[in-house]
Amino acid sequence: MQRKNVLEKTIIMYNLLKGKKGIIFGALDPQSIAWHIAEKCWEEGAEFTLSNTPVALRMGTLNQLAQKTGSEVIPADATNVEDLENVFKRTLEKFGGQIDFVLHSIGMSLNVRKNRPYDDVDYNFYAKTMDISAFSFHKILQTAYKLDAIKEWGSVVALTYVAGQRTFYRYNDMADAKALLESIARSFGYIYGRERKVRINTISQSPTMTTAGSGVKGIDNLMDYSDRMSPLGNADAEDCANYCITLFSDLTKKVTMQNLYNDGGFSSMGMSQKAMNVYNQSLEMGGELLD
Amino acid sequence: MQRKNVLEKTIIMYNLLKGKKGIIFGALDPQSIAWHIAEKCWEEGAEFTLSNTPVALRMGTLNQLAQKTGSEVIPADATNVEDLENVFKRTLEKFGGQIDFVLHSIGMSLNVRKNRPYDDVDYNFYAKTMDISAFSFHKILQTAYKLDAIKEWGSVVALTYVAGQRTFYRYNDMADAKALLESIARSFGYIYGRERKVRINTISQSPTMTTAGSGVKGIDNLMDYSDRMSPLGNADAEDCANYCITLFSDLTKKVTMQNLYNDGGFSSMGMSQKAMNVYNQSLEMGGELLD
Amino acid sequence: MQRKNVLEKTIIMYNLLKGKKGIIFGALDPQSIAWHIAEKCWEEGAEFTLSNTPVALRMGTLNQLAQKTGSEVIPADATNVEDLENVFKRTLEKFGGQIDFVLHSIGMSLNVRKNRPYDDVDYNFYAKTMDISAFSFHKILQTAYKLDAIKEWGSVVALTYVAGQRTFYRYNDMADAKALLESIARSFGYIYGRERKVRINTISQSPTMTTAGSGVKGIDNLMDYSDRMSPLGNADAEDCANYCITLFSDLTKKVTMQNLYNDGGFSSMGMSQKAMNVYNQSLEMGGELLD
Amino acid sequence: MQRKNVLEKTIIMYNLLKGKKGIIFGALDPQSIAWHIAEKCWEEGAEFTLSNTPVALRMGTLNQLAQKTGSEVIPADATNVEDLENVFKRTLEKFGGQIDFVLHSIGMSLNVRKNRPYDDVDYNFYAKTMDISAFSFHKILQTAYKLDAIKEWGSVVALTYVAGQRTFYRYNDMADAKALLESIARSFGYIYGRERKVRINTISQSPTMTTAGSGVKGIDNLMDYSDRMSPLGNADAEDCANYCITLFSDLTKKVTMQNLYNDGGFSSMGMSQKAMNVYNQSLEMGGELLD
Repeated sequence: MQRKNVLEKTIIMYNLLKGKKGIIFGALDPQSIAWHIAEKCWEEGAEFTLSNTPVALRMGTLNQLAQKTGSEVIPADATNVEDLENVFKRTLEKFGGQIDFVLHSIGMSLNVRKNRPYDDVDYNFYAKTMDISAFSFHKILQTAYKLDAIKEWGSVVALTYVAGQRTFYRYNDMADAKALLESIARSFGYIYGRERKVRINTISQSPTMTTAGSGVKGIDNLMDYSDRMSPLGNADAEDCANYCITLFSDLTKKVTMQNLYNDGGFSSMGMSQKAMNVYNQSLEMGGELLD
Repeated sequence: MQRKNVLEKTIIMYNLLKGKKGIIFGALDPQSIAWHIAEKCWEEGAEFTLSNTPVALRMGTLNQLAQKTGSEVIPADATNVEDLENVFKRTLEKFGGQIDFVLHSIGMSLNVRKNRPYDDVDYNFYAKTMDISAFSFHKILQTAYKLDAIKEWGSVVALTYVAGQRTFYRYNDMADAKALLESIARSFGYIYGRERKVRINTISQSPTMTTAGSGVKGIDNLMDYSDRMSPLGNADAEDCANYCITLFSDLTKKVTMQNLYNDGGFSSMGMSQKAMNVYNQSLEMGGELLD
Repeated sequence: MQRKNVLEKTIIMYNLLKGKKGIIFGALDPQSIAWHIAEKCWEEGAEFTLSNTPVALRMGTLNQLAQKTGSEVIPADATNVEDLENVFKRTLEKFGGQIDFVLHSIGMSLNVRKNRPYDDVDYNFYAKTMDISAFSFHKILQTAYKLDAIKEWGSVVALTYVAGQRTFYRYNDMADAKALLESIARSFGYIYGRERKVRINTISQSPTMTTAGSGVKGIDNLMDYSDRMSPLGNADAEDCANYCITLFSDLTKKVTMQNLYNDGGFSSMGMSQKAMNVYNQSLEMGGELLD
Repeated sequence: MQRKNVLEKTIIMYNLLKGKKGIIFGALDPQSIAWHIAEKCWEEGAEFTLSNTPVALRMGTLNQLAQKTGSEVIPADATNVEDLENVFKRTLEKFGGQIDFVLHSIGMSLNVRKNRPYDDVDYNFYAKTMDISAFSFHKILQTAYKLDAIKEWGSVVALTYVAGQRTFYRYNDMADAKALLESIARSFGYIYGRERKVRINTISQSPTMTTAGSGVKGIDNLMDYSDRMSPLGNADAEDCANYCITLFSDLTKKVTMQNLYNDGGFSSMGMSQKAMNVYNQSLEMGGELLD
């Protein structure tokens, strides 16, 4: 099936998520990965509510997405359990019962924002990074679990980055937050799987130019490096959305507790010819003097 | 969309593989994982050829699958490059051009069959295990690459088992073969990705009761253990087929060089309550005397 | 060289740590792994200070160790940066300059202690688990880094458990703490390595019967399982101490940012014959009815 | 203890291997990692035999090492089981009983030598690469096992490279060989550990400039990249020798089936500042036009 959507792209639809209901946390504006995922879920037949912090709702343009997809926006601070209970209760009420999927696309580091390097972090900021970027995932899962909000064979996905396994300079305490997030996916994935047949996975995505990411110093060059290291190039937000709907669909019912790389192959590379070509050119020009 | 297939199951179809062409290596009989994958590909709109060894064609019932799906069977010894060239050439001819996907589901160990334990392998058998179960994957890929047989954004999948990373007693030299197979997926995935935008992944599947597997001593109990360790239980051949079509579809274009567990969570488990319950019962009955 | 130590064991000494100075965090009583490490460091020629919380100092018998090894005990809450500064300053003063090694053997979960399961954690407890068991490692490293307390080619080790990668039922939020701890070892290992040539690793130890561990329900049977799964059996505190001194020695200068398993092979096992024998006995007795 | 060795270096000796006997496969000339390991074993008090192929013995200078360390050279093709039996029997005879350690430092690819890229390998060469670089390890282990040649708590080490997990362009079929080698270490490590308490590990070493490596095109620049990516810089042959003796010593008795990185941190890095500085300089100069 094909049709034109409001953005005038020709879209292939499979009805992969027909009849499914969910909650999408973390869409801000059309650059957000969560925004693309929401659009794709909608195109594939799903309905959902959208949630983000009150301040994000003021800064972003989430209402446009809500309007396009006929979704309700429910403000919530994802570190606040009461707020999260409200999101789930309101969503269950709206859809008249349990939901099928949840997306967690939430992360923020005040150490990064305030230029506190990893060897001089502010520990209040550090705790805040963990709370916003990782504990929030546990809080969402525990809230859902207590409310029995997710159907059998439902699916939860959180977005992460390979820095959870390997160190990238300047990624700072977000690396630790991602490692913790991935651990929570495993720990809760065990219990939620065993008790309710709900699966929990993380997608480890190529570096993606979002509004949040665009402020990070040097991100252009890092994305160039990542792109040349990846045999298929960097995965973009659209690629992530496509991958995510396979994980929300009924075709991946036994996949759980996994960290799944959507990265053009980056995570399995040691050195590519394309990236080495760039590196070599610098060495030939005297790069060996740099440090 | 729903319809009844010839087996009278109600099937949800998404047309995920509409118009796609492929080759499926390794289906033998209705217990084969590759058989399930072939059926699912067909249900999702794909056409393909089927290949297996002449001896397997005599022993199994592949013609039934060929008939049901309108496929041609092309005999080949997957360790023989000429045979493989014939499979690809005949397939390209039949479909009038490049194909979209290839499945490798091939493995056999004479050491296992002849009860030669891992500390007393016959090295001719060992080399044969590697040739049949791993080199064959390189040969398929190199043949496809040289014939430029796979379209841009095509997808190749090989089936593997977690024994490639962790040792299971009695799995013998098949563990080494799986580790090698997964390495070939990465090594060729880099080149095929960089040069032709073709992705190559392995699915690491729960232990599955196939005709080949059913002869392995103690496999029932191992499957019980694996099932209780996995929060979602073992993935079966049908689950694998569902997962496989997501990897053949256009929704996973940037996923490559990955080993993807379809195992109900087994690979991320250290110890589950259900498996420990069984273990504990034995200890209480004097299991501590066993060795 | 051989001599009798005060415990009347014959000890082989290599002088591996002759002249080296360090700090050991987390020894409580002779069952502590850190206690064994301290003894071994002393036998190999090192001097060090010992640190633990004031309450641990009251409950345990650390003074015996201090007396035997001629060490000073410096109380500190490892979540408190001022306390940690005091430990480092006092140690540098005592030894008249920079030190060579640091051990982090600190972990505690109030959720575990108060029987709050992972799907019903108290978030104040959860934050406390992370602060005590993981943030404390960052705080120790950042304090050391700011005071430039560790010599070039110095070595830092933290103790962890395989639950950081794979889920063990009942290990609860300690699994997340260990994943975070290991991430901190990588993240800070990069900076401390690049700037000061200091290496940072974690040892992932077999389950070990310490005073802390002995209260965990079911730990006996889990240790039995782990022992039978491990081809060399569980590593004990003495094994850990032996391994640790190789990492503090000058023989491992280029090993950094690694999680190193000292576990008799457990981490690379899928299923062993010995463990399966126990499991099988239970199945034969009707274990298949358990859940 | 310190003394001057014949090369006039001041050496710290610990007697870590006092009284231990072993076999070292693969030393060729003073650039070989195995040569450095042999020297270090000797300095630490071990005795051993040396083995390499007849052709290597003619090309290299192994007799110098033999003379210095008082060792016997026993020629063997490590793909030939009879030759290996002879090495073990002769060694056991010489030392009057079982040995303590074995080093495998053997690898060769005719595809690399003959410039056959990975997408156009010669399959006879490919099989030869596997036989020489990986099967040989199984053959050594099986021969030792059948002759019961290694003492309880003995230790076996093979040298490998991170290409076994991640793809490096041009490393070709050696990547597959290393993945297979590491799998053999696990598979045989399980049995040898369970039955005889012998441990088997691999050291995954930084790229090292050996006589074999120096012929590889572009290795200088790859080593520069690896060095800048590694917070502690590349590990050299001397570092590897130091690490190796800890694994042969009695201090690491419960470490088995592990792949241990001796690489200055490379394996845990995603991107370092130093490497990125070089990359950035190229981009600023127009590197973005390269491919």
